Amino acid sequence: MQKFWSWILPVLVGVILWFLPHPQGIEADAWHLLAIFVATIVGIILKPLPMGAVAMLGITLTVTLGIVTINQGLSAFGNRVIWLIVIAFFISRGFIKTGLGARIAYRFMSILGKRSLGLAYGMIATDLVLAPAIPSITARSGGVIYPLLRSIARAYGSDPDDGTSRKIGSFLIKASFQGTVITGGMFLTGMAANPLAAKLALEQGVEITWAGWASAALVPGLLSLLIIPWVLFKLYPPEIKETPAAAEMARAELEKMGAMKFQEWIMLFTFVLLLVLWIFGSLVGLHSTTAALIGLGVLLVSKTLTWDDILKEKGAWDTLVWFSALVMMASFLNELGLIPWFGERVGNWLNMDNWLIAFVLLSVIYFYSHYFFASATAHVSAMYLPFLTIALAMGTPPMLAALVLGFFSNLFGGITHYGTGPAPVLFGSGYIDMKDWWRLGGLASVINISVWFVVGGIWWKIIGLW
Amino acid sequence: MQKFWSWILPVLVGVILWFLPHPQGIEADAWHLLAIFVATIVGIILKPLPMGAVAMLGITLTVTLGIVTINQGLSAFGNRVIWLIVIAFFISRGFIKTGLGARIAYRFMSILGKRSLGLAYGMIATDLVLAPAIPSITARSGGVIYPLLRSIARAYGSDPDDGTSRKIGSFLIKASFQGTVITGGMFLTGMAANPLAAKLALEQGVEITWAGWASAALVPGLLSLLIIPWVLFKLYPPEIKETPAAAEMARAELEKMGAMKFQEWIMLFTFVLLLVLWIFGSLVGLHSTTAALIGLGVLLVSKTLTWDDILKEKGAWDTLVWFSALVMMASFLNELGLIPWFGERVGNWLNMDNWLIAFVLLSVIYFYSHYFFASATAHVSAMYLPFLTIALAMGTPPMLAALVLGFFSNLFGGITHYGTGPAPVLFGSGYIDMKDWWRLGGLASVINISVWFVVGGIWWKIIGLW
Repeated sequence: MQKFWSWILPVLVGVILWFLPHPQGIEADAWHLLAIFVATIVGIILKPLPMGAVAMLGITLTVTLGIVTINQGLSAFGNRVIWLIVIAFFISRGFIKTGLGARIAYRFMSILGKRSLGLAYGMIATDLVLAPAIPSITARSGGVIYPLLRSIARAYGSDPDDGTSRKIGSFLIKASFQGTVITGGMFLTGMAANPLAAKLALEQGVEITWAGWASAALVPGLLSLLIIPWVLFKLYPPEIKETPAAAEMARAELEKMGAMKFQEWIMLFTFVLLLVLWIFGSLVGLHSTTAALIGLGVLLVSKTLTWDDILKEKGAWDTLVWFSALVMMASFLNELGLIPWFGERVGNWLNMDNWLIAFVLLSVIYFYSHYFFASATAHVSAMYLPFLTIALAMGTPPMLAALVLGFFSNLFGGITHYGTGPAPVLFGSGYIDMKDWWRLGGLASVINISVWFVVGGIWWKIIGLW
Repeated sequence: MQKFWSWILPVLVGVILWFLPHPQGIEADAWHLLAIFVATIVGIILKPLPMGAVAMLGITLTVTLGIVTINQGLSAFGNRVIWLIVIAFFISRGFIKTGLGARIAYRFMSILGKRSLGLAYGMIATDLVLAPAIPSITARSGGVIYPLLRSIARAYGSDPDDGTSRKIGSFLIKASFQGTVITGGMFLTGMAANPLAAKLALEQGVEITWAGWASAALVPGLLSLLIIPWVLFKLYPPEIKETPAAAEMARAELEKMGAMKFQEWIMLFTFVLLLVLWIFGSLVGLHSTTAALIGLGVLLVSKTLTWDDILKEKGAWDTLVWFSALVMMASFLNELGLIPWFGERVGNWLNMDNWLIAFVLLSVIYFYSHYFFASATAHVSAMYLPFLTIALAMGTPPMLAALVLGFFSNLFGGITHYGTGPAPVLFGSGYIDMKDWWRLGGLASVINISVWFVVGGIWWKIIGLW
């Protein structure tokens, strides 16, 4: 039954919108594209087919119905922001393949892991270090960190099957989950939908660079990463506070791994090179996607990654397709005049004396509407552009508005057990019951919003965003 | 050692060309791009890394060295001709997954398979039917047909291990191999490098449509498909001439398969729809890529193909990358003025009274230079555009020149045991020794060239290509 409606609703919404009389000042093509766009978003939310397939059908409809030409319909496949994230997916495979990701985690564990709070910080530090180059938070949190957490929890006799979750597993998993939504928000390449937000912002004339995103997020991000685990440690404490065996285990694993292998060095070198190029490249006119291409080139030439590794990186190809479809539609909604028209209308309705309060309110609505979304991408593609348009119409400084909505597009992932990629994986471990997951997620969201608005607000004032 | 040179040579060629003083009238950027392009082609031929990786490095160099912007460097990823072939790869998976490909083969076998010559024609008929929608000749010949040939050969006690190859296996494999290079040449979507040729021709202002390619190839193609197996049957005869058991086996397999399944019907419907849209779509302004998108949409919505089938279709993603890299470079060689300059120069040197003889000679050189290439793509990307430019400068009618070089880009695959995807597979079966492979390949090439020039020439005159 649910399956049935997941098919019917997108079609129904699209057809109704299509035939609805369109407002004056809007061309028929723009209106029809809006109908297909909304139907695609509803499809991405309800998932009659996986996101990529729905997106592909969206492109198919758009070109078949003659709203854009086939050239225009495919144009976004050559978009540099999309390729930034696709190439980052390829590169991130190198962390897992070479074992460098695990080594970094063990290193932090061996240093910080003697107490359970330190262990949580160690995992979050790993996550933070990997975030710039692993845009799949599911790969980062679910692939690198979660396996370690499970083995630590088991080593301390904490297992949901025996009712011993709260010994240590619950705390570690919850803390690292809340950490990953923050680290994702700190880098343009930290989460797959961040470049989508950046691209949509560009439609409104706001160009977010890699370095610009990272520097704005730095202060509130680090503060959130410090506060949240500590609050969880107080309000959701593990029974075991001292964990010498974890640090011991990490040291043993490091010993077993031996010295850094050649390919790990290459991976490390590539990673540092990438960071340097992403941070300073814009000074010499090197686009972040070119930097990513260079990094990938190093990994290919050194055979750290084989071409077959690239071809079977399904997440990358999936991202290429859905991202291109959404960007194409959003671009043409803009080009055909619908988004400017919407912005103008909103500007006329809203007559704000104080954009600040209005923008805070708007962002909070944007944040908590994530209770209704099962993926950051779906949420960003549906709501980022209209909310940004409204924010700009209210007079919010453009870069501030674009970035805050971008940051929140990550932070809101922490509230439910379905709202972001790793959530179902970590929740599915069974260590945390749903009441706690939501309660603590809600609490963390309040802390995050406060930190990012208050401390972030001061920081953004200092760096001149408003 | 060979590995060493495969790395050194492309780099060396590129560096030398880069620093060579460039001829007057050519901008530095154009010359430098030529250096990278040639280095990439040499890399594709020598394969220090797989073709896709070499192509990716080509893009990386082009944008890192600032010859084109990152936007320009990625632009070809949105090219509609490239997506035509990528989507055709996806669709072709449906033939194998649903079993429709095998059913078609068994059907032809049961009708034509009572004699070994008929069996060969049956396999070629299968190949011909599948060719429009399966651009990977390796998938078509190696994936669908070769397994059947092996089981027939074994059923008749023909096995290279017992020295019984010539009983029937040698003939069947050789005939079907020579068939597949012809069927590939008959459709724009019959081989992965055909759209590359078409795209390169477009750089010279010649627009080849799907229907245009198919109609020009129809008569010489069918004639070649009739003559070659018969000649092989006479000059390289199988010991077993009557094969009632093969027809019997096919009937038994068909019985085992039972009635057409729902998804086979969908696949068949999609295939017919595609052919109709490809042939007649241009009348209503429907581009062949849009048609392919519609076909893919049908397969996705009917769940004949899952999204995961798409994501793991590595050949498609590989093609997307190498194709985009080559098209991008060729486009900018043109845009930066190198190809027009080359064409003009050639036009000044050549002062042909008779383009016809010159073009025949040129095409034959193009054909037999394939002895030096290990893939049609490498050959097309290296030689198609310069040879077409020369042909046009000599006064050859543009569409004729573009198509003949395109057809030959398939037919030349039959001469060696390494020159095209399925060749190593079929040669590797061990049924045919190298002397026979080359001897018969050489013979077939002479027949093909004669048929396509003489009968093809008359046909192309009738349909007004010259």
